[in-house]
This record gives sequence, C-alpha cells and structure tokens, in this order.
Amino acid sequence: MNKSAPGHPYRAKLHEVIFEADTTAGKAFDVALLVLIVGSVLVVMLESVASIREQYGAVLRGLEWLVTIFFTIEYALRLYSAGRPFAYASSFFGVVDLLSIIPSYLSLILTGAQSLLVIRALRLLRIFRVLKLVRFVGDAAQLREALHASSRKIAIFIGSVLTVALIIGTFVYLIEGEKGGFSSIPQGMYWAIVTLTTVGYGDVVPQTVFGKFLATVIMILGYGIIAVPTGIVGVEMHAVSKRTLSTQACPSCSSEGHDEDATFCKNCGTRL
Amino acid sequence: MNKSAPGHPYRAKLHEVIFEADTTAGKAFDVALLVLIVGSVLVVMLESVASIREQYGAVLRGLEWLVTIFFTIEYALRLYSAGRPFAYASSFFGVVDLLSIIPSYLSLILTGAQSLLVIRALRLLRIFRVLKLVRFVGDAAQLREALHASSRKIAIFIGSVLTVALIIGTFVYLIEGEKGGFSSIPQGMYWAIVTLTTVGYGDVVPQTVFGKFLATVIMILGYGIIAVPTGIVGVEMHAVSKRTLSTQACPSCSSEGHDEDATFCKNCGTRL
Amino acid sequence: MNKSAPGHPYRAKLHEVIFEADTTAGKAFDVALLVLIVGSVLVVMLESVASIREQYGAVLRGLEWLVTIFFTIEYALRLYSAGRPFAYASSFFGVVDLLSIIPSYLSLILTGAQSLLVIRALRLLRIFRVLKLVRFVGDAAQLREALHASSRKIAIFIGSVLTVALIIGTFVYLIEGEKGGFSSIPQGMYWAIVTLTTVGYGDVVPQTVFGKFLATVIMILGYGIIAVPTGIVGVEMHAVSKRTLSTQACPSCSSEGHDEDATFCKNCGTRL
Amino acid sequence: MNKSAPGHPYRAKLHEVIFEADTTAGKAFDVALLVLIVGSVLVVMLESVASIREQYGAVLRGLEWLVTIFFTIEYALRLYSAGRPFAYASSFFGVVDLLSIIPSYLSLILTGAQSLLVIRALRLLRIFRVLKLVRFVGDAAQLREALHASSRKIAIFIGSVLTVALIIGTFVYLIEGEKGGFSSIPQGMYWAIVTLTTVGYGDVVPQTVFGKFLATVIMILGYGIIAVPTGIVGVEMHAVSKRTLSTQACPSCSSEGHDEDATFCKNCGTRL
Repeated sequence: MNKSAPGHPYRAKLHEVIFEADTTAGKAFDVALLVLIVGSVLVVMLESVASIREQYGAVLRGLEWLVTIFFTIEYALRLYSAGRPFAYASSFFGVVDLLSIIPSYLSLILTGAQSLLVIRALRLLRIFRVLKLVRFVGDAAQLREALHASSRKIAIFIGSVLTVALIIGTFVYLIEGEKGGFSSIPQGMYWAIVTLTTVGYGDVVPQTVFGKFLATVIMILGYGIIAVPTGIVGVEMHAVSKRTLSTQACPSCSSEGHDEDATFCKNCGTRL
Repeated sequence: MNKSAPGHPYRAKLHEVIFEADTTAGKAFDVALLVLIVGSVLVVMLESVASIREQYGAVLRGLEWLVTIFFTIEYALRLYSAGRPFAYASSFFGVVDLLSIIPSYLSLILTGAQSLLVIRALRLLRIFRVLKLVRFVGDAAQLREALHASSRKIAIFIGSVLTVALIIGTFVYLIEGEKGGFSSIPQGMYWAIVTLTTVGYGDVVPQTVFGKFLATVIMILGYGIIAVPTGIVGVEMHAVSKRTLSTQACPSCSSEGHDEDATFCKNCGTRL
Repeated sequence: MNKSAPGHPYRAKLHEVIFEADTTAGKAFDVALLVLIVGSVLVVMLESVASIREQYGAVLRGLEWLVTIFFTIEYALRLYSAGRPFAYASSFFGVVDLLSIIPSYLSLILTGAQSLLVIRALRLLRIFRVLKLVRFVGDAAQLREALHASSRKIAIFIGSVLTVALIIGTFVYLIEGEKGGFSSIPQGMYWAIVTLTTVGYGDVVPQTVFGKFLATVIMILGYGIIAVPTGIVGVEMHAVSKRTLSTQACPSCSSEGHDEDATFCKNCGTRL
Repeated sequence: MNKSAPGHPYRAKLHEVIFEADTTAGKAFDVALLVLIVGSVLVVMLESVASIREQYGAVLRGLEWLVTIFFTIEYALRLYSAGRPFAYASSFFGVVDLLSIIPSYLSLILTGAQSLLVIRALRLLRIFRVLKLVRFVGDAAQLREALHASSRKIAIFIGSVLTVALIIGTFVYLIEGEKGGFSSIPQGMYWAIVTLTTVGYGDVVPQTVFGKFLATVIMILGYGIIAVPTGIVGVEMHAVSKRTLSTQACPSCSSEGHDEDATFCKNCGTRL
C-alpha cells in the first residue's frame, strides 16, 4: 500500500491521506471513515427492525444514501490515487470497498417486479462494510499466528467432534425413536452438537431413561474434551508469546530466551 | 492511605483505627464494617422481594436507617481524620462511601409526587455499598495485572466476536425470515451471541434446516474459539506468576524480576 | 492407619486385612467393599424412582438390610482391630462409616407418627456411603494440591462473580420490572449467575430491548472471564506438575529440572 | 501393515496400492475410498429423514448397494493381498471393514417377520463406516498422547463429578420434592450434571427458593472446576509439545526426547 505515485504531487498527497495513517490528515481521514462505517452498519441494523423502519424509514434511507455517496467518492479516490489501480481493485479491501456501494445502486434498478428477498439480501450485503474495520486492527497478528499454527490440530479436533456427534446422533435417533424431535439422524446430530458444545437450547431433549443416560455421558464427555482446543491454542499462544518476547541471542554464549528488558545475558553476564 | 495527621494525637489515633488494619482496634473496626456492608446489601435484596417487603417492611426500613446512620458517622470520621479531606472525598472510596448514604436521605425528599421508578432506582443504588468490600481485597493484584496485560488482546477479541455475531445474525435473519423470533438483525445478533457464548437460553431457536446447519457451524466455531481468551489470559497469568516467583533482587543494582534460572543480573551483569 | 495391635495376633491379622491393601486378603476385602458401596448407592437411587419402588420395593429393602448388616459388622471389626478405637471413630472415615449404618436403624424407630420428610431425609443420608470411595482414591494428591494452592485466588474470583451478579441482577430487576420472572433482586441475581456461567436454562429470559442488551454484555463478559479460573488453576497445575516431575538436583552443578527418566545431568553430564 | 507378500508380484503390487499411500495409484485409491466413505455415511443420514426417504428411497438404496459392493470387493482384496490375512481380519480396521458390509447383507435375510427395530439398528450400524476415516488421520498422535497421559487424572475427575452430582441430585430431590421434574434421585443427578457441565437445557428447573439457591451454588462450583480438566490436559499438551520439539538424537546411544536446552545426553552423558 505504500507505493507512491511520483508523477503527480497532488495524487501522492492524496495517497498519503487515504492509504496511510502517519500524518494528521491521514489520521483524521481514518477516524472519519471509522465513524461512517460503524454508523452505516447501525443504519442497516435499525432498518431491519420493523417498528423503527415504519417510523424512521425516510431518515434511514437518507442516511444510507449519504454514506453510499461518501463511500463512492472514497472508492473513486482510492482507485485514482493508488499506484496500480487494478491491483487495488482486485485486492481484498478493493473488493470489500466495491461490495459496500453496489447493493445501494442495485436496489434502484431491482425495484418493482423482483422478489423482495433478493433486494433485502443485497441490502444486507452492506453489513460487510464492517470488514473495512479490519484495516484498523494492527495488533491481531499474535492471535492470528497462534490460530494459524494450531489450525491443523483444530481441523482434526473438529473432525473428531463431528464423528462423535454422528455416532451419538445415530444412537439417540435409535433410542428415542420419533419422540421429542429426534426424527432423523441429522436431527440427532444437531442435538448431539448442541449438547457437546454445552449450548443446550432445550428445544430438543431426551424423554426416555436411556436417552437421558446417553445425554449424561456426552455432557461429561463434552466437559472433558472442552479442554482439548483450549490446550491446543494455549500451547501455541504460549509458544508464540515466547517467540515474540525473546529474539536476542547472547553474542558471547549464544543463549536465547532473555526477557525483552534484559541488558545483560542471564547465563554469562555479557552485555547483549 | 498512610498519611498520618501529625498535629492532633486523637485524630492520628482515629486515622489508625479507621484507615489501617495493623492494630487490634483497626482490625475490629474492619470486621464490624464488613458485617455491616454485607448486612445492608442483604437488607436491600430482601426488600426487593414483594412477600418479604409486605411482612417485614418496617423491620427492614429500621435496619436500613441504622446502617445509614452508621455509614454517615463513618464518612464524617473519615473526612475528619484523613490527612487531606478533599483527596479522600474525591478518591474512588470517598465517592463510594458518599453514594452509600445519599440514596437513603434522598428517598426522604423524593416521596409522594415523584415517579415510583426514580425512587426505586435511588434505593437500589445502595447496592453499590458492596463496592466498599474492594477495600478488603488485598490479594487481587496478580489477577488484575494479568487482566490488564491482556486487556488490549481481549478488546480485539470482543470486537471480533461482535463482528462475527453481526455477520451471522444478518445471515440467520435472512434465512429464518420472521420465524422463531428472528424478526430483525439485532435479534439475530442476540441469538448469535447467546449461541457463540454457549449460554443457549432456547428462547430463540432456528426452525429451518439451513438455520439449524448455521447454528451447528457457529456452535463448533464458538467451541473452537472459547480457547482464545483462555489462552490469552493463561499466557499472561503464567508470565505474571513467573515474574512474581523470582523474588531475587540484584545485590548491586537492586533490580527485581529476574528469571528463576538467571545466574547474572539482566540489568547490570552482576552475579546474583 | 498402619498402627499394628501387637498384643493379639488375630487382631493384627484383621487389621492387615481391613485397613491395608498389600496382602491378597486385604485386596479381596477392598474389592468386596467397593462392590458393596456402589451396590448400596444404586439401591438408594433405584428406591427413589416411584415405579421401581412399587414393583421391587421388597427386594430393594432386603438388599438394603443385607448391606446395612455387612457395614455394621465391618464397623464393629474396624473398631475392634484399630489400635486406638476412639481415634478411628472420630476420624473422617469413622464418621462416614457410622453415618452409613445409622439411617437404616433409625428408620425402624421413626415409623408411623413421624413426618414423612424426616424419614425420607434419613434414608437418603445413606447416599453418603459414596464417600467411602474416597478411601480408594490415592492419586488425587496432585489435583488437590493444585486446587489448594489456588483456593485463595478462586475465593476472590467467586467473590467478584457474586458482586458482578449482584450489580447486574439489580440493574435487570430495575429494567425488566416484574416481567419475565425478574420479580426481585435475588431472582435477578439467579438469572445473572445462570447467564454468567453460560448455563442458560431459559426459564428466566429478558423481554425488553434494554434487558437483551444487558444480557449480551454479560454473556460476552462471562465469555471473557471464564478464562480467569482456567488460567489460575492452569498456572498452579503447571507449577505442581513441574515440581513433582523434577526433584533431582545434579550433585556436581546443582542444576534442577531434569526429566524423571534422566540418568545424567543435562547441563554438565555428571551421573545423577 | 508394511509386510510385503514376496511370492506373487501381482499380490505385492496390490498390497502397495491398497495398504500404502506412497505411489500415485495408492494415493488415488485412498482418495476414492475417502469419497466413498463420506458418501455412504451421507446416504445413511439422508435415508433417516422421512421426507427424503419417501421421495428418493429407491435412489438411496441403489447407491447403498453400490457402496456395499465396492466395500465387499475392497475387503476381499485386502484379505487376499495382506501378508497374514487372519492378522488383518482380527485387527481394528479388519473388524471395521467387515462391519461396514455385513448390515446390508443381513437386511436381505431379516425382512418381513423380524421386528422393525432390529432392521433399523442393523441399517444404522453402517454409520460406523465413518471409523474407516481414522486410517487417514496421521497427525492425531500428539493429541492422543496428551489425552492418554492425562487419562488417569481425567478418570478421577469424572468420578468426582459423578459423586458431586449424586450428592447434589439427592439434595435437590429432597428439597424440590416431586415438583418441576425432580421425581427421583437419578432425575436429580441428570439435572445436576446438566447444570454442572453448563449445558442447561431448562427442561428440569428448580422452582423453590432453596432449589434455586442450590442451583446457584453448583453453577459457580461448575464454573470454578471447569478449569480442572482444562488445566490437566493443558499441562500434558504442554509437556508433549515440549518433548516433541526436541528432535535431537544422542550421537552415542541414539536415545531421543532430550529437552531443548539439554547440552548432554540424559541417558549416557555424551555431549549432544
């Protein structure tokens, strides 16, 4: 993102304000963008509430267009000031920026005959504007690294949970029969996952003694294995946090693992 | 809190009893205060139960005034014995002490014409007397430090959870339509958070097959990511506990916080 | 428990069989006791099910008396063979052993005129026979140590949870009024704890928008702080497991932290 | 599994394709098998949904027989190409492979007179085909090791949870009487486990004040002890991940499993 457009000084200045956050103008622009994104998401949320839509529908639609026009201008300026417009347009943020403004314009064309659901689905796409916020998260790297490092183990874990849920769901379907909502194996799996994850809605509940016994077993099972993903991520987080804290190696004895604030090697006393 | 008031010996003695807990009198005062706080909170709680209020209303109001008068005297003595009364009055505990007595007196003035809710809200404010208990917690430092050290990561985590809940809530609103309580995006978000956090009231539950599938996905998602805050705080607690385990101070520069296996001071290189 | 009674060889032999588990006879006695305890607990459980009690009441009562007689003989023999009978009788296990047989005999005396609840409560006391199982748990030491080491922090944590539940319960009582089961502050606290601990029965649920918003806040709060006890016990378990794994110190360089299976010091290569 | 059958070159080739995954043909066979297993499990699941069975019953039964025939051929080839057929047939995978095909053939014989439940149970046995997937999980070793290492502590933990549930279930049965579903001790235990594990269906809920107080206590108890299995597995995972990180083998005695910071072999004292 830090490719400057050397030819035009105005364009370079614009690039600095829009894409970077080092100058005062750049920071002000980011704050304004942040407020607008949160505001536009709130507008979409409020518009979905029937009673609010009926009373303040016109106001919300007005705000909606205001935000859309600003985001359109922002998108145009980004395209203009970016060093390579196509690279920006096809990047993750370029697509998100485009998706933020298209639904509003499409809703103009698709009035009348089209089914209401299509339009509504399109309007709701605007909620993805919230993803623009990702731009502002600079500190998530450690979290992301820990999740990434343990992603393979988590995949195996989820696979095991699904297999356990499949087997338990089949048993409960057999035991409970058609009673209490266990009308098929997928329904049984739904119940098994609701129970294993300790969500426990209570919309599907075993009625027979055997069913309750099975429920008890998988609750304790779930209680026991909730520790596994915790352990996995915990170990990775620990490894990551350790790694980011200690990169200095002693010039004399080459030992590592010093604290961030260490000035001398803790093994041989040499200045780091 | 250990500023003595040198001029008046009686005031200094009072300061010792009220603000400190080293002497026998100071300890007795603290125990009496503890009992009174817990008692007064119990009185407010019991008064809110309709059947108890009808039967023992007079007794409870009597106890309430007894406690209020004691707390008023305590507040006056604290103001009197404190080295700098204004510093005390504007401190956290000063405000809590004042808030503990104001509601009772205000309920005298605000009888009759005022709306019932305002009075009830005022009376219930007395519940904050429980915050006076914070004074007695001296060991919470390690917990607080761990929470503080991971507060930034927790904020990012909560932000991510809210974003996920927003996107899932929008999807479920679109899929389930107006059925089963998913009447708006905020309702969908409410359901998504109830499910992600594994609370699972069951007051709003998906009815369609797609909705149940989505529910299953976010339950396993929630199951997987419950590990993240655990991992974060776990790592910080570990770091804090490690740091507090090494009680060695450098004989040369008196710096602390060395690792357990450190042989040399990490600040000045002196052998420990 | 390993005090022998030197005078009587028969009594010493009895002591060996009943109190110890090193000989074949001692092991057989322990297995028989284990089976009887689990069996008698099952009898009490089955007797509480109305349909089973009606059909197999006589059989269950017969089994019950069989077990009671065996436990009575066991108690008598323990008293006889113990080096100091009074020390045994007033120990934890002595009290548990006595409590295992008293209810059955008392139910003989308390028939007829006495209220049904007292008799039922007495019969159910027999369930505490399960505590006799504690005798067989020899490996719980590490768990207990970790729990004990973190008990103070857990107490502070529970205190904080109760304080948070009190404040949230008061707020929800104020916001929701008498609707949806929030009829008093204790009811509000009950709901707050049901939600904070992610149990989420769904018997009491907020109806108003403000109430749902408050619920969302405390769910995420609960999600965030569930990490705290996990972190506390985790750190302590880690510390305990570390300590129990490594007690050997190198005779040459005095370094610690060797694996259990280590034969040579990992720092200087000296035989441990 | 890597015993070659030297006599017949064709049989050795077959063994390579079916049992190993190093060659292109072997990998293609594994992918085909993977798709068939997942497909056949989906068929069983869909067949259990009444509406789908009515409409696509013939198609599903056709697919079912296709899969059964393929699995039969696979089983025959495995028996033929395995170095020791009996060893394979009695191994875990041999039994799973046989169980995958038997139910379909048995359903041919058991039509008509037999009870519906037996047939349904047999058909559903096919769901265990999912266990064939275990073959493809090569990375689960670390997870399994951590679970195995902590299995003894987890058993004690589950025993303690059951004992706590038994005692609480008895109390709640005594307090709540026959109200709200607490009709027996097993019912009380079911509720206690539903609450302790924070599942909280809400199908059985305390009605009395004492019952709600007891519920509050065990919820906080459950909140406090959820940390224990987490801590156990966490410590073991940490230990395992640490052990697996040190891939150094001793140059002298070839022993592995040294700590990362080890300078000398812990078995023979040779410098690493």
